Amino acid sequence: MKPPHPGKACASGEARSAGLAGPPPVRVVIEGVEPEIDGGRFPAKRIAGDAMVVEADIFADGHDQLSAALLYRHQGEPEWREVRMEPLGNDRWRASFEVTRLGRYEYTIEAWIDRFATWREALEKKLAAGYDVESELLEGALLIEQAAQRAAGADAAWLRERALVLRGSAPQAARAELALRPDLAACMDRYPDRSGAARYDRILRVDVDRERARFGAWYEMFPRSCAAEPGRHGTLRDCEARLRYVASMGFDVLYLPPIHPIGTTHRKGKNNAPVCGPGDPGSPWAIGSVEGGHTAVHPELGTLEDFDRLVAKARELGIEIALDLAFQCSPDHPYVREHPEWFRWRADGSVQYAENPPKKYEDIYPLHFECENWPALWEELKRVVLFWIGHGVKIFRVDNPHTKPFAFWEWLLAEVRSQYPDVLFLAEAFTRPKVMKHLAKRGFSQSYTYFTWRNTKAELIEYFTELTRSESRWYLRPNLFANTPDILHEYLQSGGRPAFQARLVLAATLAGSYGIYGPPFELCETEAIPGTEEYAHSEKYEIRFWDLDRPGNLRDFIARVNQIRRENPALRFDERLRFYPVDNDQLLFYGKSTPDLDNIVLVVVNLDPHHPQSGWVEVPLDEIGLDPHQPYQVHDLLGDARYLWHGSRNYVALDPRTAPAHIFRVRRRIRTERDFDYFL
Amino acid sequence: MKPPHPGKACASGEARSAGLAGPPPVRVVIEGVEPEIDGGRFPAKRIAGDAMVVEADIFADGHDQLSAALLYRHQGEPEWREVRMEPLGNDRWRASFEVTRLGRYEYTIEAWIDRFATWREALEKKLAAGYDVESELLEGALLIEQAAQRAAGADAAWLRERALVLRGSAPQAARAELALRPDLAACMDRYPDRSGAARYDRILRVDVDRERARFGAWYEMFPRSCAAEPGRHGTLRDCEARLRYVASMGFDVLYLPPIHPIGTTHRKGKNNAPVCGPGDPGSPWAIGSVEGGHTAVHPELGTLEDFDRLVAKARELGIEIALDLAFQCSPDHPYVREHPEWFRWRADGSVQYAENPPKKYEDIYPLHFECENWPALWEELKRVVLFWIGHGVKIFRVDNPHTKPFAFWEWLLAEVRSQYPDVLFLAEAFTRPKVMKHLAKRGFSQSYTYFTWRNTKAELIEYFTELTRSESRWYLRPNLFANTPDILHEYLQSGGRPAFQARLVLAATLAGSYGIYGPPFELCETEAIPGTEEYAHSEKYEIRFWDLDRPGNLRDFIARVNQIRRENPALRFDERLRFYPVDNDQLLFYGKSTPDLDNIVLVVVNLDPHHPQSGWVEVPLDEIGLDPHQPYQVHDLLGDARYLWHGSRNYVALDPRTAPAHIFRVRRRIRTERDFDYFL
Repeated sequence: MKPPHPGKACASGEARSAGLAGPPPVRVVIEGVEPEIDGGRFPAKRIAGDAMVVEADIFADGHDQLSAALLYRHQGEPEWREVRMEPLGNDRWRASFEVTRLGRYEYTIEAWIDRFATWREALEKKLAAGYDVESELLEGALLIEQAAQRAAGADAAWLRERALVLRGSAPQAARAELALRPDLAACMDRYPDRSGAARYDRILRVDVDRERARFGAWYEMFPRSCAAEPGRHGTLRDCEARLRYVASMGFDVLYLPPIHPIGTTHRKGKNNAPVCGPGDPGSPWAIGSVEGGHTAVHPELGTLEDFDRLVAKARELGIEIALDLAFQCSPDHPYVREHPEWFRWRADGSVQYAENPPKKYEDIYPLHFECENWPALWEELKRVVLFWIGHGVKIFRVDNPHTKPFAFWEWLLAEVRSQYPDVLFLAEAFTRPKVMKHLAKRGFSQSYTYFTWRNTKAELIEYFTELTRSESRWYLRPNLFANTPDILHEYLQSGGRPAFQARLVLAATLAGSYGIYGPPFELCETEAIPGTEEYAHSEKYEIRFWDLDRPGNLRDFIARVNQIRRENPALRFDERLRFYPVDNDQLLFYGKSTPDLDNIVLVVVNLDPHHPQSGWVEVPLDEIGLDPHQPYQVHDLLGDARYLWHGSRNYVALDPRTAPAHIFRVRRRIRTERDFDYFL
Repeated sequence: MKPPHPGKACASGEARSAGLAGPPPVRVVIEGVEPEIDGGRFPAKRIAGDAMVVEADIFADGHDQLSAALLYRHQGEPEWREVRMEPLGNDRWRASFEVTRLGRYEYTIEAWIDRFATWREALEKKLAAGYDVESELLEGALLIEQAAQRAAGADAAWLRERALVLRGSAPQAARAELALRPDLAACMDRYPDRSGAARYDRILRVDVDRERARFGAWYEMFPRSCAAEPGRHGTLRDCEARLRYVASMGFDVLYLPPIHPIGTTHRKGKNNAPVCGPGDPGSPWAIGSVEGGHTAVHPELGTLEDFDRLVAKARELGIEIALDLAFQCSPDHPYVREHPEWFRWRADGSVQYAENPPKKYEDIYPLHFECENWPALWEELKRVVLFWIGHGVKIFRVDNPHTKPFAFWEWLLAEVRSQYPDVLFLAEAFTRPKVMKHLAKRGFSQSYTYFTWRNTKAELIEYFTELTRSESRWYLRPNLFANTPDILHEYLQSGGRPAFQARLVLAATLAGSYGIYGPPFELCETEAIPGTEEYAHSEKYEIRFWDLDRPGNLRDFIARVNQIRRENPALRFDERLRFYPVDNDQLLFYGKSTPDLDNIVLVVVNLDPHHPQSGWVEVPLDEIGLDPHQPYQVHDLLGDARYLWHGSRNYVALDPRTAPAHIFRVRRRIRTERDFDYFL
């Protein structure tokens, strides 16, 4: 339904202080709109198919009845569509629309005094009080006649007829009865007088992504370590061969660290040694050599054709390839020669390398995003992204975005997404909370989080309550990496296999998006540089050969968890994560459900990797729609055991040597006619 | 200090999507500014002499050092003044300025990358790591030379000298030492490069009132009931005689219901009877008769000259007269005849009277604020306000502002306060929470609250936590009326004298502004129309004669409480109200303090008017700066008893028959040289 009178009136009825003239100021106030990020400066985020729920405080002086509409359109559409808002009580109103297309939608709110509803309510009260309502009926007739002028076709005539009756000489009671008929109210509601409507003074925005933006299991892997036999530099062809392995574990995204030529100048040696030894391959993040830069493939990995094959083969297996965007250069990068103006030149004539004194990263030159010819640099970096999109890449993991200007990302992401709204960007910003959030506001589809450093029950509850309940839930989508090439947390180092299992379950069920860095993860690799969370013999600086069949590996376990994720849509709804009580500080109990409660998942994780733990959980029967007087089944999808539970308090025990977690699907009892019970 | 480079850059560094050109976008982000009401749409409120504390999140990409300044000016001043902001950690910054003048101030924030501080920090780290810093010194010299160009007078030369040394041939260590000297950092900080500074994209506002806006004891009284002997219509001269009585109780504001001529058409009788009897005086809110309207004095009360005398005499006694602004008319008001277009005319040719079916208020015609000639009506109502200001009235209690357009109030209050910034308006809006808050946003200096209906411990804690800790504390100043001519709460009806005492202490100490409607309050009048909270024989409809010396009256008690209020500035700081634990649900324990903790008041109130109650309070020693190992004195200012307390847990007992509350002033132990203790 289109608004008959697109609101002309100003926002919240501000009176002109310089002289009073024209129509009287708007009386209706619209405020407290949600979602609205920083006064509308940034868009919210949603997934295609989502209901976009919008709420606002809407009220006016006095006691008049109000009506309100949520106006929305895909950006660029000339006309607003609209849906009426419903009052929730306490002057709060709500409506929603389905976001069906990718890209940007706009929305705002219009509200007006509903003179007919106001009149109708007063008429009802006066009739109840036994008043003479002759004047009321005449005033109602006028309102109906005015609506008839706004109405089209048959409605106009139908309304005029009713106005005539109200003005007529039939008994007052009969005319009043007609005036109060629901069909009249419904027709009047189609032609409201919106000439004095309040229009919210901001047009708000929501960016709509495909499902993968909120739900996906990521696997990170170094292609050069993928050779089928030790002692050889892995290639993209080896990666291709490894795809079945990755697919067998149920991953959706395969993320590769940079695949570009690696510089030789100041190349780092094994374990980040300042000088490399013969044959050391260098860090893939020291991008660029005589063989090319950000759009080239490292010759030892293969060719661009090999990459295209990898992308195509992965797609066949339901896997998307994600590339790393690390906008920095080795001293040998072609940019250094061709565009010296894109770097910072020191007073001593050298180029500024990356440093954090006393640490020096002489193998890496940062780009100078504020250089004089910054537009050329920015355009070139956009070209890099478009180049890889041209080769089938739709997901980018962005390295250290917090060390490049926010405005650059906002521009780049908007430019790319205006052409390719299905492209996703994951921000690898391990930095201060407000900076992380701000990058998400500027447009990143997903964000790395502090998850790896949140290991106790209190830490997890506090952090995930913030992520899923605070305002940041409108724009920041967490992607939980259980480990990365940079982070092997002490909890994993000391907890061994049960710790890896617990962290996998947490990552895979606390958020729709999660990832591991393999094979070290599924092989439960715990060897770190002592006293640090750095992997020993890190793949960042050397080629590793991994025995994928190492005893105790988690391949089957991970496959099971990823299957559970795919089969239970509840796990896609991060905003619906809730923590529930359990009387043991080593047990974490939480749940997620689909909005319609069709799929309910409850998870219990034993955070103690060394000892069995048990306790009484409190199931939120009310919240998940369970009858307190009926038994229900919790089906442990991990172990495939089924338990019959009654009421809210139930007992759980988890031994880390066998299973550090339950992932329960809640099944309601269905009683058949023949008194045969089953659980759905 | 004036900013050398008033920020030209755009707000938060939004990149232009349509082509990249010009200087690179601003890198610094300013967000999360507090106070900021509805994105800056409404001003905050402060009292002259207050520190206006402003906070914001300020950060940039990367690791550069930042500087920030809070810019402020009284509205109309051409130049910003500024004060540097200090980092609080977690990217939060704070600064404050003193608001000294009444009226409106503006403020905003500018922040920039502090290149010298960034350079200096890196230099320090590199020296500590033993690097060669030759290039760093040359780069520092350049920064200093650039600052010298921005510098004035001696500073410029002084800076150039230092740059020369840095470029010179002295040993590197000596030059580095000079480069790091604090005097150089201080001088550089006076001439920052703010060419790429971020300016917050909103100019925020704060309205500054005089002290009475947040601190004052109000006394409401019907002049016509002030006659010295029964059976006579009281006059303004009688009021004058009553002033000493009001002053003796320590009140600051004497608020009079409307003093204008009262209409006779449809005049209400005693106890709101639809028809009046002979001699019934009518409701003072049915304003206007042949004797005049809103700028006239009811002849039976006296003359305008009498009113002027009353204002002057009150002023001598330290009392301000507050008038009622009830923008509505009796059918006999001159406006009805002279400006029929200012009213709503019904289809049957009658004027719309006030009604809430089945209730009819035929003695009152609402004004039609949206009538065709609304500007003339609005201007006339402004004239009414200015008229009374001309007669010395600086405080108005506004009757039912929520039934008139918000825009009207915003316009009227702004118009009046632009001429008379010392004029205050109290909103009598007993309506829905968001409407109450919105009226405060639009400019009301103070607001009636739900206080009369918050009587249990849980209700009081919840409501006052909301009033003093939520965002509304920036703009809504509560004025707690313990009773009004419309509200004699059941708690008072059934609780008798101890209930009146408890509610008085609560009102007088929970908020800086409070009021009572007397003499019924101090006489502990409990007679209500059964089953309602309406006074029986309400003064709204008849003249009452009150025996001020009635036994059990609270005159001395009120005088004591008001004296305590005047002597303890802690009670002026509503935002510093905190509730503390006490293990008895009938005891409420809370405190207030001055920002410097010079004055600390702790209050315990027994909410049970019928039984003695006792319990253990927990004094927040840390919060109020008490040494847990030292005794301290709590001096009950109500009963003048002194108790020596130790540690946080202490015992209190309150018998409603003697004293339903303690108002403790906390006195610290001072140990003299001769080991003689006293308490300050």
